[in-house]
Amino acid sequence: MSLPVTEGEIRVAHARIASWIRRTPLLAADPSTAPGADVTFKLEWLQHAGSFKARGAFNHLLSRDVPAAGVTAASGGNHGVAVALAASRLGHRARVFVPEISSRVKVAAIRAHGADVVIGGARYADAQAACDAYAKESGALLVHPYDARETLAGQGTVALEWDEDQARLGEPPIDTALVAVGGGGVAAGMACFWARRVKVVAVEPEGSRCMHAALAAGRPVDVQVESIAADSLGARRVGALAFEVAREAVDHVALVADDDIRAAQRLLWSDYRMAIEAGGAAALAALVSGRYRPSPGERVGVLLCGANVDPSALA
Amino acid sequence: MSLPVTEGEIRVAHARIASWIRRTPLLAADPSTAPGADVTFKLEWLQHAGSFKARGAFNHLLSRDVPAAGVTAASGGNHGVAVALAASRLGHRARVFVPEISSRVKVAAIRAHGADVVIGGARYADAQAACDAYAKESGALLVHPYDARETLAGQGTVALEWDEDQARLGEPPIDTALVAVGGGGVAAGMACFWARRVKVVAVEPEGSRCMHAALAAGRPVDVQVESIAADSLGARRVGALAFEVAREAVDHVALVADDDIRAAQRLLWSDYRMAIEAGGAAALAALVSGRYRPSPGERVGVLLCGANVDPSALA
Repeated sequence: MSLPVTEGEIRVAHARIASWIRRTPLLAADPSTAPGADVTFKLEWLQHAGSFKARGAFNHLLSRDVPAAGVTAASGGNHGVAVALAASRLGHRARVFVPEISSRVKVAAIRAHGADVVIGGARYADAQAACDAYAKESGALLVHPYDARETLAGQGTVALEWDEDQARLGEPPIDTALVAVGGGGVAAGMACFWARRVKVVAVEPEGSRCMHAALAAGRPVDVQVESIAADSLGARRVGALAFEVAREAVDHVALVADDDIRAAQRLLWSDYRMAIEAGGAAALAALVSGRYRPSPGERVGVLLCGANVDPSALA
Repeated sequence: MSLPVTEGEIRVAHARIASWIRRTPLLAADPSTAPGADVTFKLEWLQHAGSFKARGAFNHLLSRDVPAAGVTAASGGNHGVAVALAASRLGHRARVFVPEISSRVKVAAIRAHGADVVIGGARYADAQAACDAYAKESGALLVHPYDARETLAGQGTVALEWDEDQARLGEPPIDTALVAVGGGGVAAGMACFWARRVKVVAVEPEGSRCMHAALAAGRPVDVQVESIAADSLGARRVGALAFEVAREAVDHVALVADDDIRAAQRLLWSDYRMAIEAGGAAALAALVSGRYRPSPGERVGVLLCGANVDPSALA
């Protein structure tokens, strides 16, 4: 199996970013959450800036030379928040390009970390094009949200912590990890770390399925994006690196309906009082909807990966 | 030191309730949350029914004979939710008396667990009087929110888990625990477990300070209650058992202003995306306001004890 990032590189990335990120805890889910399954959540929504994206952003900035022009990124939201945070902590300027569909909460968070925000274009791809042009013109370091080795290595540290913390808590490792896919960075990073030691199931909304479509076509292709989770899982095309990993080391893609995602969000709020955004609840949606059916005794890990929801939506 | 509940009784309680409660995780706080201090949160707001009260409720119901008339409780909210939950899981009827100041969110949660709700009286003490009368008349088992040995032993299991999980994570024990006080049940339960091995600092709102007043008067006395946290920390008189423990095993009471509590709530939402009610944020308020000043290197644990906030208030 040839993967673009090695377990060793992910261990190095973890040592590099460890003092800048939060080690997010595990929580055993209630039996009633997914009857018959043995489920553990990783509360990655407790990460800085509300999602795993902080891992890749810090790893990127800490392993590259950052020019005086600073850094730039295009992002539906969470990556933008994470890059703004990492740049501010490490003393760099940041300019973040966001599409018009971005949530109010995320744009406010990007600004709160002192970054310039440029809003424009209907979809994520438009923001990326504007960002690419700005990087070329200004010399700013472009931090891609998912299609970069530094990003994959950073996001892969989620898997490393999961392994270590199961052991520290005296629990056997998980058999399977359910991980939501936008551009595929965190699923691919985790799959690189585990290299099939743990089964990685990628989860995409039916209406935003770039990894599923790429696997069907045999190459990354553009897809239409129409989902309640589009502001975090709204990539039009899977990353080239993530596609490579998906073919080698991801078990399969489970598709979930927007209604399944809404139900998972409601369950996380009503049963656990966790305020999770749609994209962050998608992995759980695969389980509670039955789109992913674990075998008896299978130890399933569910990555709860993003918190940046508007709380009034939960009321 | 003579305490009403022993460490051994708390260990027995933990074994009794372990399969009914969640083992809530620890999270290292950011250095910026309380500069100079080494702070660990226990995320007890992730407990069933959104607060530590589930521990005492389950311990109470599992160690007593419950009559056919079921159980009854008076509660500003979280205890009521917890008793309703425990009764429903264990197959008992429940009737919960709540004062008019109770939050909409909590009353809805009590009903959602199938309990009868009786709303009446301006303050917690009125609800308790109505509840006492109902228990006498119906024969229902009265589950006191804080002034019962079963309750203290249940809440004390928070301290047991804290010790064990610091060790499992390879961390030394905490030196000090900041714990909010309503009637004093959880602070007293934890102080019974630690018996001064860990310094317990009780935290009360300036406007609702029944433990502070009792220590000053040398006996439990009635206080006025006027605080943003009154719906969870609104007891008019400290529990007799908690008072006994406070004199022996609580270091001191730190008082916090309502504005400090609001600031702690805002910090927990903006920096961690945790939706914490006012009472649940009071312990952190003591730290961020400087009302409690740790020594250099002191390892401070902060119990985040309640989640039952109306999310629209965080928007």
